[in-house]
Amino acid sequence: MSGARTTNRSFVAETIAIGSELLVGGRSDSNSLFIAELLGTLGIEVRFKSVVGDDQADIVQVLKTAASRAGVVVMTGGLGPTVDDCTREAVAKATGRRLARRKEALDGMTARLAQWGRELKKGQLRQAMIPSRAVVIPNLVGSAPGFLVAWKGATLVSLPGVPREMEAMMTQSVLPLLAAHRAQSKLMSPSPIIRQVFHTWGLPEADVDAKLQGLIPKGTPIDLGLLASPMGVLVSLTTKPSGKKMVKADLLQPLAEQVRSRLSEWLFAEGRESMEEVVGRLLAAQKLTVAVAESCTGGLIGHRLTQVPGSSAYVDRGAICYSNQSKIDMLGVPVDLIAQHGAVSQEVAASMAKGIRERAGVSVGLSVTGIAGPGGATETKPVGLVYIGLDGGPGEAVTKECRFHGDRQVIKQRSSQASMDLLRRWLLKRIGA
Amino acid sequence: MSGARTTNRSFVAETIAIGSELLVGGRSDSNSLFIAELLGTLGIEVRFKSVVGDDQADIVQVLKTAASRAGVVVMTGGLGPTVDDCTREAVAKATGRRLARRKEALDGMTARLAQWGRELKKGQLRQAMIPSRAVVIPNLVGSAPGFLVAWKGATLVSLPGVPREMEAMMTQSVLPLLAAHRAQSKLMSPSPIIRQVFHTWGLPEADVDAKLQGLIPKGTPIDLGLLASPMGVLVSLTTKPSGKKMVKADLLQPLAEQVRSRLSEWLFAEGRESMEEVVGRLLAAQKLTVAVAESCTGGLIGHRLTQVPGSSAYVDRGAICYSNQSKIDMLGVPVDLIAQHGAVSQEVAASMAKGIRERAGVSVGLSVTGIAGPGGATETKPVGLVYIGLDGGPGEAVTKECRFHGDRQVIKQRSSQASMDLLRRWLLKRIGA
Repeated sequence: MSGARTTNRSFVAETIAIGSELLVGGRSDSNSLFIAELLGTLGIEVRFKSVVGDDQADIVQVLKTAASRAGVVVMTGGLGPTVDDCTREAVAKATGRRLARRKEALDGMTARLAQWGRELKKGQLRQAMIPSRAVVIPNLVGSAPGFLVAWKGATLVSLPGVPREMEAMMTQSVLPLLAAHRAQSKLMSPSPIIRQVFHTWGLPEADVDAKLQGLIPKGTPIDLGLLASPMGVLVSLTTKPSGKKMVKADLLQPLAEQVRSRLSEWLFAEGRESMEEVVGRLLAAQKLTVAVAESCTGGLIGHRLTQVPGSSAYVDRGAICYSNQSKIDMLGVPVDLIAQHGAVSQEVAASMAKGIRERAGVSVGLSVTGIAGPGGATETKPVGLVYIGLDGGPGEAVTKECRFHGDRQVIKQRSSQASMDLLRRWLLKRIGA
Repeated sequence: MSGARTTNRSFVAETIAIGSELLVGGRSDSNSLFIAELLGTLGIEVRFKSVVGDDQADIVQVLKTAASRAGVVVMTGGLGPTVDDCTREAVAKATGRRLARRKEALDGMTARLAQWGRELKKGQLRQAMIPSRAVVIPNLVGSAPGFLVAWKGATLVSLPGVPREMEAMMTQSVLPLLAAHRAQSKLMSPSPIIRQVFHTWGLPEADVDAKLQGLIPKGTPIDLGLLASPMGVLVSLTTKPSGKKMVKADLLQPLAEQVRSRLSEWLFAEGRESMEEVVGRLLAAQKLTVAVAESCTGGLIGHRLTQVPGSSAYVDRGAICYSNQSKIDMLGVPVDLIAQHGAVSQEVAASMAKGIRERAGVSVGLSVTGIAGPGGATETKPVGLVYIGLDGGPGEAVTKECRFHGDRQVIKQRSSQASMDLLRRWLLKRIGA
């Protein structure tokens, strides 16, 4: 991403997340990622992100720095009714504007509260204080209004930190306002920043990299990104911001096709779709039902499958078989099989998958047995050794041995992903895909 | 947090997370929270956090701003072997230092790779390039070395972005170096910033707030923080940075005691402990075993309980009973009971808890049945209606009706938390606590 970048501040954005908890607490800020994606559609690139506590002087400083390098600054948080919430004051101070109670802000709050059968409390009056000459941004989801100020060639936007409220206000008000302002000021209309995301499972990052070698012809204004996580390797194609009008989609499509064909069977989803959604979609389309038998994943596969709305149509049940006895009781795994091969073995994984399929009377059974660690390893069976099994009826049984690295949590995650991927591949094969 | 803050830059820190993926991708940065906590032990407060892409000019700009307002700047990321990784160049550029290959950096990398049975590749040589007069920070976990530069009264630290590597280097090298430097330069030794965290479940944020009303006497240099999430309300006490030597622990302890007594039964954990760890600790101490019967949570309770290392000592099994038939088959819930009261009812929750306890032969059975939505609601049973049950043998049965708000994911989370809290309360009552 280094090299010549646009130096036109109009196409550069910065997000500022305001709140002391974001600096010290266990909470990460996800708002800025949403904002980056939305501004990208206008060709505006988020190049900086700042986080600052509930301290007026600190917010003023961060805001001034942001306005000096970015044409669009989006602040989130610090608009609540308490004294801690000082974004309004900080913006007024930084821009030299006066704060005054604004009628449209107050009316909006009153109307919103009335819908909830509540009345405006005195403490909430502060939330209607808006810097002079600012545009009030109505909050149709919560009570705190936002505002937009044009200052020294930069557009400063202030929104609540609650994701649902921020998202609605960005989509319904801020984006149209920015687009209109850009049209009005005859600002050169840049091409949107388009980002396309591909999710792979089962290949190390270096192998994904090798498969995509030479994909992007030199000089093409598209960035290729790779990001490894316990859930697989994510591949992204992003058009570079140009500031020039240009149909970038025409450039991206053939490359996206190339990515699909090069990653082939390893590519399990695109965009925001998750593995559990893909598997659910395939099960529903084929009118099949599934049941799971989980040892080391402890319920994670069932949990993930049932995160998808409507999953009760294809998820029948699951057995979490932590103890050996539970594998015998709930799945009918033969005592001798466990004695002979151990609970963590290909044979037991196969028996678990068959057992849950038959007992549940479903189309397909899925099983996992392994050593998540840190304890439980033996001389021949290390932490991370995991067997997954699938049983789709006579002649339709598959097992797979996996050796994962990482801590207990990571091994559970990888095991759940691997087992669902086995199911995905089996479902695709059934329809000859 | 507004008001008089120390203006001594030595006690102010800024973190800079470097990486384009952090600006646009789905990955949040958690490193800065770890760094904030560690620097707090030296009385250094992280007041600013920045995120910037892999762009040399942008990094230089962010670094200069940071050094102007913070005495300690900790950068993470951008130290890899690829051309994208330009933190080394940016630091050299910002500080006007020359980059040169450093022997101790190279030796460290070679030694580390040898341990893994690998050899240094030519592309990795870049990673041994260090700005002149910088202190090399060895990486005992990964291959990329870090470094520390003193510049214009600020200490600039550059570390890899991989959490495990960053954490080891911060703890083993950076903190001792900072402490020694502060001792040497006779910098006034400030009191450490102490933060104590309390986790509550079952009370709305406004009720927690009311219970803590007037807790902190005016003028006490301690901040009270509240943060609501689907997992409950977090309460924090944080000593304000003073820059003066002072035994703050003496101030904090009586207040922490007050928090404990005011929050009483609603307080389920302190510090980093999670609900599943608390429940696991209580089960292990009483040598009891548990089995779960999950409908709407779909395996989440089992998953959470088995996130804890050593949980196989007390988790026996679980039944994920999504369909009505599975409740009958796996738990022996009477068909008539479901027909009469519906699957989402107090009666079925009680029968599920009893069924799993008896079939598993464990000390206690825990059950959940509810409507996670968005579909499945009826006229009398709305989305968010959840029944939880506990059965600890004859005369030891409890059920509870909950009405949760939120989307499917949130309702599942809250249901799992509520059921584990029921178990926690029962376990505490058994030992007369």
